[in-house]
Amino acid sequence: MNAPTAHNHLVPEIRQREVPAALIDALKARFGAQCSTALAVREQHGRDESSFEAPPPAAVVFAESTQDVADAVKLASQYEVPVIPFGVGSSLEGHLLAVQGGISIDLGRMNKVLSVNPEDLTVTVQPGVTRKQVNDEIKSTGLFFPIDPGADATIGGMSATRASGTNAVRYGTMRDNVLSLEVVTASGEVIRTGTRAKKSSAGYDLTRLFIGSEGTLGVITEVTLRLYPLPEAISAAVCSFPSIADAVHTVIQVIQLGVPIARVELIDQNAVRMVNAHSKLALREEPMLLMEFHGSPAGVKEQAEVVQEIAADHGGKAFEWATTPEERTRLWTARHNAYFAAIQSKPGCRAISTDTCVPISRLADCLLDSVREADESGLPYFIVGHVGDGNFHFGYLLDPAKPQEREVAERLNHALVSRALEMGGTCSGEHGVGLHKMDFLVTEAGAGAVEMMRTIKRALDPKNIMNPGKIFTL
Amino acid sequence: MNAPTAHNHLVPEIRQREVPAALIDALKARFGAQCSTALAVREQHGRDESSFEAPPPAAVVFAESTQDVADAVKLASQYEVPVIPFGVGSSLEGHLLAVQGGISIDLGRMNKVLSVNPEDLTVTVQPGVTRKQVNDEIKSTGLFFPIDPGADATIGGMSATRASGTNAVRYGTMRDNVLSLEVVTASGEVIRTGTRAKKSSAGYDLTRLFIGSEGTLGVITEVTLRLYPLPEAISAAVCSFPSIADAVHTVIQVIQLGVPIARVELIDQNAVRMVNAHSKLALREEPMLLMEFHGSPAGVKEQAEVVQEIAADHGGKAFEWATTPEERTRLWTARHNAYFAAIQSKPGCRAISTDTCVPISRLADCLLDSVREADESGLPYFIVGHVGDGNFHFGYLLDPAKPQEREVAERLNHALVSRALEMGGTCSGEHGVGLHKMDFLVTEAGAGAVEMMRTIKRALDPKNIMNPGKIFTL
Repeated sequence: MNAPTAHNHLVPEIRQREVPAALIDALKARFGAQCSTALAVREQHGRDESSFEAPPPAAVVFAESTQDVADAVKLASQYEVPVIPFGVGSSLEGHLLAVQGGISIDLGRMNKVLSVNPEDLTVTVQPGVTRKQVNDEIKSTGLFFPIDPGADATIGGMSATRASGTNAVRYGTMRDNVLSLEVVTASGEVIRTGTRAKKSSAGYDLTRLFIGSEGTLGVITEVTLRLYPLPEAISAAVCSFPSIADAVHTVIQVIQLGVPIARVELIDQNAVRMVNAHSKLALREEPMLLMEFHGSPAGVKEQAEVVQEIAADHGGKAFEWATTPEERTRLWTARHNAYFAAIQSKPGCRAISTDTCVPISRLADCLLDSVREADESGLPYFIVGHVGDGNFHFGYLLDPAKPQEREVAERLNHALVSRALEMGGTCSGEHGVGLHKMDFLVTEAGAGAVEMMRTIKRALDPKNIMNPGKIFTL
Repeated sequence: MNAPTAHNHLVPEIRQREVPAALIDALKARFGAQCSTALAVREQHGRDESSFEAPPPAAVVFAESTQDVADAVKLASQYEVPVIPFGVGSSLEGHLLAVQGGISIDLGRMNKVLSVNPEDLTVTVQPGVTRKQVNDEIKSTGLFFPIDPGADATIGGMSATRASGTNAVRYGTMRDNVLSLEVVTASGEVIRTGTRAKKSSAGYDLTRLFIGSEGTLGVITEVTLRLYPLPEAISAAVCSFPSIADAVHTVIQVIQLGVPIARVELIDQNAVRMVNAHSKLALREEPMLLMEFHGSPAGVKEQAEVVQEIAADHGGKAFEWATTPEERTRLWTARHNAYFAAIQSKPGCRAISTDTCVPISRLADCLLDSVREADESGLPYFIVGHVGDGNFHFGYLLDPAKPQEREVAERLNHALVSRALEMGGTCSGEHGVGLHKMDFLVTEAGAGAVEMMRTIKRALDPKNIMNPGKIFTL
C-alpha cells in the first residue's frame, strides 16, 4: 500500500478492510443502543475538519466506561477490524477518517472530571471532557488548565495529537502538561502510564509515547493534567504593525529576552479583515499581535513595558488594552473564530491549513518568503500563528470544485514545509501528521526514525487495528 | 532469569554472556589504542556510585565519533554481546555494571560543544560534554543550561536517566529540556529524533522514549538542549526551621501559591552537621531550606517577600542571603557535597540513596513517617531533597561488612517506597531504575505497563544487547 501523496484530496489507495457482520452482531449484543450503524451517525464520525473524504466507519460505539472501550477493542481485535477513537471531531489532519474501514469509538460520553487535587495542582478527567469543561469545573479552586488549541477539543483528543495553541509559549504543550494516562491497548488490556508525582525516572516514558500517537497505539481512557494557579493579574493587548516583518521581529526579540509572555499571536491583515467581518469588530486592518501577560500586578506591568518598548522600535501602534475578562474573552473569541471567519469569507470554500514550526531565529525568513509565494499565487489565504513558539498557520482557501486551486494550495504548502525543514523546523507544530503529512514526516525525521516508529507500532499493535493508516502506513 | 531482589547488594543470578575473543580482536583491529582490555580500565568502567558489584566489562572502547559508536555497536551486535554506554560513572543505580558481561563504550572523548544558537536558545553537544562544561562554553552568550543534578554528569548520561536536580522545580527535567537527539540504535544505525523547533506533533515522541531509557534502547551520540536567558537578578538564601515538618509545610505553601522559585532544597539536621564538618561551614544545625530566586530585580524581591512571610509563619529563622556569585557557589557546593560529606562522616561506609517523589500535598506525610522509621532504626542517615518537586533522598549509611546494616537500610527503603507509591508517587524521581528498583517499578507501573516496556525493548533490540538487565529483565 502506498502513502497518499500530498497532492490528493481524496485519500488514495485506501484498503477498506472487511468488517464482518459477526462483529457488528457482537457489538450490538454487547452494547445495545450504545452501538449505532445509522448512516447519519457513521457519516458524522467519519469526517473531521480536514479536507479529506473517505467512506464512513461501519459502526459507532458510544463508550461510557473504560470497560466499554476495552470490550469494543477486544471484539475488534478478535475480528482484526480497525478502531478509530473519536472526541469532538476537531482534527485538521484526517485523524478520524476510516481509511481502512473499521469502527469508531465515540468517547464523548466519558465526560466526567474524576478527581480534582487542588493542593497538588492536578486534575484527572475522562477523555471526552473538553478543555473548556475542565476550566469550568475547577473554577472554584483558583486554578486553571492553560492549553488552548482554539477548538473546544476533548482532553483525550488533545493528548492524542500532542496539541498546544495560544498559551504554549509560556505553559508548554500537552507533552508538558499530562502527568499520566490510562490507556486501552491494542489487545484490550488496560494499563496506566505514570503517577501523580511531578517528575519521574521510573522506566520508559510511556506517557509521552502515547501523547501524540494519534490513536495508533491505543485508546486513551483517562488523563491526569497539571494545573496552574490563576495569575493574580492578567492583561491582554493588541498592537498593529506596518508589516508582518515588524510584528515578527518584535516577537523574536521578546522571546530572546526571555520575557515570560503568556500568549503572543500573529494575525495577518487578511485574517483581521475576515475576523472583523465575521465578529463585527473594527480592528485596524493591519498585521497585528494579540498578547497576554500573566503574573503579579508588578510582573505584568514589567513585562508589558518591555514588550511595548520593543514593539515601538518596530513601528507598533499604541497598545490597546483589554483588562476586564469580558474584553479579553471578546478578543480571544475573535482570534479563535479566525478559521471560521475565513471559511465564511469565501462561500463554499475549504481551507488547507499548514502547521510548520521553526526555530525562532528563522521565523521571519520562513514566514516572509511564504507570504511572498502566497501573494504571487493569487489564492486567498490568511495567517494566524503562535509565533512565540515559531509556529504559524497559513490557511489557503480553495474551491473544492476547482482542482487547480487545490494544486496551488498544495504547492504552496509543500514549499513552506520544505523551507521550514531546511531551517531546522518541523512540518507539524501541533496538528499531528494524520493523513496529510506522512510524506513530510519521512523527509523531516528520516527513513530510519520513521521505521523505528513503525517497529514500535508493529510490536504494540501486531494486527494493525489501532487507527491504521495515520502517521505512516505499514 | 530472575530480577535481583531488593535485599541483595551483589547483583544475583547474573548471566555473564560470553564475549568471544574474535570480538575483542575485531575491536582492536578497528579501534587500536582506542580499545583497552587493561584490568584497571575495565574495573573503572564496571562500577558507579551505587553499592552494587559485578565483574567488569571485557573491553572498553573510547569512542571519538558517532561512527566509532556505530561501528562498536555493529561489532557487538554481530557477536550478540552487551554494550554499556559510559559517561563519567556518576550513576547511583548500577547502570554501568556489566551484569551480563559485554563491552563498555566510553563517551568521554566525545566532549565537544557542536553548535550554539543563542538567538534560538539552543545548544547542540556531544554526549560526553558535562553540564558544567556546557555552562562554561556558553558563558559569553548570556544564556545558561539549568539542569543540575549535583554531580558534574555528562549530558548523555543525564539524558539517559532523565536527570533533574535542584533547578527542576522551575525549569523542568531533562524530559523538558532536550529538543532532539542523535542515537545509535541496537543495529548500529544512526537516527535523529526531533528538530530544533520548540514544539512538534510530528510522529511518535522518540526523543522522550530515549530520555530515561537508561541505555537499553540505543546509545545517545548528540543532544540539542534548551537554554534560558541568565536571570537579571539571582538571590540565594538559607533559612533554618525548628523541625522538618515546619520546613516542608513552608515548601508546600510556596508551591501551591505558584511562586516561581528556582530552587528549594531541604537539608535535614544530620546533613547540615555532615556538611559543616566536611566543608568547614558553620550552618545552624537544624533542618534548613536552601533557596534560590531568579527573575527581574523586582520579581526576585516579590518572590522572596512571599516566601519569607510563609517561612516566618512556620517558625523559620531570619533568612541569610547570599547575593554574590561567590557566596552562592559556596552554598550550593556545600549542598552538592552533602553526599560525600556523609560518606566521610562514617569511614568506610557506603550509602543507599532513596529517590521517591510524591505529589506535593503528601510530602510532609511521606517524609515525616520515614524520618520516624529511620530514627527508630538507629542507622545513621541524612536527607537532602528537591522538595519543591516532592522529591527527596534519604541516604542510609551502612558498613558493607555488616549485612544486617544493609538489611535495615533496605527495609527502610522498602517501607519508604511503598508509602510513596500508596500516595500516588514514584519510586524514582531522577536517578532511574537501574538494578535496584526493578521490583519497585513493577509495583508502581503495573505488570501490563512493564510488559509494554519489554515489548518495545524486544522490538528495538531483538538481541538484547543494549545495556541488558537494567530497568527490567527479559
